[in-house]
Amino acid sequence: MNVVNLIQKKRDGKAFTKDEIDFLISGYTKNIIPDYQFSAFLMAAYLKGMNKKETSYLTDAMLHSGKVVNLNSIPGVKIDKHSTGGIGDKTSLIIAPIVASLGIKVPMISGRGLGHTGGTLDKLESIPGFRTGLNLNEYKSVLRKCGAVLIGQTKEIAPADKIIYSLRDVTGTVESIPLITGSIMSKKLAEGIDGLVLDVKAGSGAFMRKTKDAENLADSLISTAKSFDKKVIAFITDMNQPLGNYIGNWFEVYESIKVLKGEVKNDLYELCLNLAGAMIYLGEKSKSINEGKKLAEEQIKNSEAFSKFIEIAKLQGGKVDYINHPEKYPESKFVKKLTADKSGFVKKIDNFQVGTASLELGAGRKKLGDKIDPKAGIVFKIKIGDKLKKGDDIAELHSDNKLKNDLAARMLSDAITFSNKRPIRPRLIKKIIS
Amino acid sequence: MNVVNLIQKKRDGKAFTKDEIDFLISGYTKNIIPDYQFSAFLMAAYLKGMNKKETSYLTDAMLHSGKVVNLNSIPGVKIDKHSTGGIGDKTSLIIAPIVASLGIKVPMISGRGLGHTGGTLDKLESIPGFRTGLNLNEYKSVLRKCGAVLIGQTKEIAPADKIIYSLRDVTGTVESIPLITGSIMSKKLAEGIDGLVLDVKAGSGAFMRKTKDAENLADSLISTAKSFDKKVIAFITDMNQPLGNYIGNWFEVYESIKVLKGEVKNDLYELCLNLAGAMIYLGEKSKSINEGKKLAEEQIKNSEAFSKFIEIAKLQGGKVDYINHPEKYPESKFVKKLTADKSGFVKKIDNFQVGTASLELGAGRKKLGDKIDPKAGIVFKIKIGDKLKKGDDIAELHSDNKLKNDLAARMLSDAITFSNKRPIRPRLIKKIIS
Repeated sequence: MNVVNLIQKKRDGKAFTKDEIDFLISGYTKNIIPDYQFSAFLMAAYLKGMNKKETSYLTDAMLHSGKVVNLNSIPGVKIDKHSTGGIGDKTSLIIAPIVASLGIKVPMISGRGLGHTGGTLDKLESIPGFRTGLNLNEYKSVLRKCGAVLIGQTKEIAPADKIIYSLRDVTGTVESIPLITGSIMSKKLAEGIDGLVLDVKAGSGAFMRKTKDAENLADSLISTAKSFDKKVIAFITDMNQPLGNYIGNWFEVYESIKVLKGEVKNDLYELCLNLAGAMIYLGEKSKSINEGKKLAEEQIKNSEAFSKFIEIAKLQGGKVDYINHPEKYPESKFVKKLTADKSGFVKKIDNFQVGTASLELGAGRKKLGDKIDPKAGIVFKIKIGDKLKKGDDIAELHSDNKLKNDLAARMLSDAITFSNKRPIRPRLIKKIIS
Repeated sequence: MNVVNLIQKKRDGKAFTKDEIDFLISGYTKNIIPDYQFSAFLMAAYLKGMNKKETSYLTDAMLHSGKVVNLNSIPGVKIDKHSTGGIGDKTSLIIAPIVASLGIKVPMISGRGLGHTGGTLDKLESIPGFRTGLNLNEYKSVLRKCGAVLIGQTKEIAPADKIIYSLRDVTGTVESIPLITGSIMSKKLAEGIDGLVLDVKAGSGAFMRKTKDAENLADSLISTAKSFDKKVIAFITDMNQPLGNYIGNWFEVYESIKVLKGEVKNDLYELCLNLAGAMIYLGEKSKSINEGKKLAEEQIKNSEAFSKFIEIAKLQGGKVDYINHPEKYPESKFVKKLTADKSGFVKKIDNFQVGTASLELGAGRKKLGDKIDPKAGIVFKIKIGDKLKKGDDIAELHSDNKLKNDLAARMLSDAITFSNKRPIRPRLIKKIIS
């Protein structure tokens, strides 16, 4: 096979065979195909697309660039959840213990935050001592002992994804549905799962701003999961405003504790019940998603979910004292309050801007290697549709730097649009596809 | 400016500003933008196109990556011709002396052969002693003395073209009209010309197989030339069969001598009169292309054109003894005759295959650096529409290797389709655009 001919084939809109995709992916992973040819292929694939078969072949080639974990020796159905990422999205921390407390195995390999959205690993690591860098043996051991485990991607898992993503990032080829599908699914399939619940976000704080694009991505992810004989359910959910009311690493652990204890019943709680309900259904512990939701609610009420969270944290080295007594956690030196400078309804939130403001406070990374301040973040007190009077609270900004608080407050203030007419509140769950 | 943003801009089908194109081209030429980003840009430009303004900016940026020759100190209008290349296309050797003999200056910077088409430099170098590697001072000096000069591209001329072309060649981004236009026009404009005649070939032996594609390329070349205030005329000409009857380096010099002496009046002669006529018109020595053609014919009849050819060859170091006595030129060790194995009309010629057969004989290069046999080649004795009887001559194959002659003969034989019905002969000149 000849690389130039393959680039031309995709450039001319033709579909690849399995062998051709294997040749490209293994050639690039093994450093036989140079960056400049692979980036031309990526741009051709971005602009000409790849059909469902090709996307499945791509996923397979990326998956087999590394190790595929075998969890057969651990009893129980293994179900994971993947979210495409959003502002204040801490559902993994809540649903993993809920679902595991019902005897379903939840093996989760997550990412770090980069840019305006946070990462599950950074949130977990705000719990002192919590280790996300377990190796694959430790991963299996924790999963066997308590039914859930949350770690970061190891070098053995889909190495092709890491190098392809790095190239996509600098060549304008990130936002491609088949390439995103290959990236997500190769990592998820490597975990050793039987089924997967997908949370595909749509809106101003999401990767996919338009619901239609989110649906297309969900379709591609679903068809790829099915081609590997995995059970799958996808939710299209709203990301036009932060999920829950806390943004920032420890802040999100804090809100997760509140939800797990049944002390908060907001949009975050509602979405967690849905996602957990679908995982419970795929894990064969309920006959429907709705029945699964009820079981999930019950696990919160009877404290089983919170106990499971403590158990997971302990097994992964976390100091659970802070989980039991969050009031002991260190606080930021400065808190700035943002209040409404006029009356009216909250009409629109530029949620990307909210994420960027939180980044500015030190809650995220602008570039790889940046240090995160675990206690920095935003308490976001409004939702679209709320009626505010002049002087009402909008948000609290927490950080160790007064100037950063001021800057972030200005960004937040710019991100919010008011109107005199009552707007329609966005629907949290736009669609469920399976 | 940010390279990724620019790649995304072209990927999304938006048009670049002059500053953006300058940034990309100078950044790549100066090795600041890496290959893998430039190749993603090239693929995006290939698939999304570039408008006429962008193509002109691109040409300008590539042109100014090197030296632009100033010929103001040399009196007379300076007119060149560019052909997109074909089998047996030796018109430069014939029209340069015709046009120069009328007092028009003809500064020609040409290329070498690669793949199935030959190159003017290789043809000229089959004349022992002929130097095509003149520096820019020698180039001006020869032009001043005899009114024409034929050299190869120097390192000072449009260096961006060389490095961009190398990358296009390995990333499937060669056949793009704006990129081809930038490549051709940046080199031609660097010569210091006032006007340009374009010979854009269409057919089975041409870069552009379809006439429509050739017209689109001609349109792009014309609009770019005009944006630089250059006078321009384009011919769309047929390349469904070899031009003239000789293919191979010395063979083509030989046929050029025949035409310059008025001894051959075939399709090659006809095309040369047209191209020279247009150059004479642009050079302000005639009131129309037709009047130019008549003047060109006259220069052949009165031997002025042939004398000029001798003069140019002498000034560039060529042994003119071979030009005056071509029968003295060394001959290939083996000659194979190909004859018709049945009766019928010549219906179709796979002209690309004819070029490849000549390459096989040693008349061209399969890869950069291959050595050429100047005396090898094909005497091609038929034209589409000819009626042949079984046993009639089709071609003679000349080389120093019997096996190569056999192989090339088989290739030629496969390249020709016969029919019982008289086919329509292709029109040599399909269109003249200005």
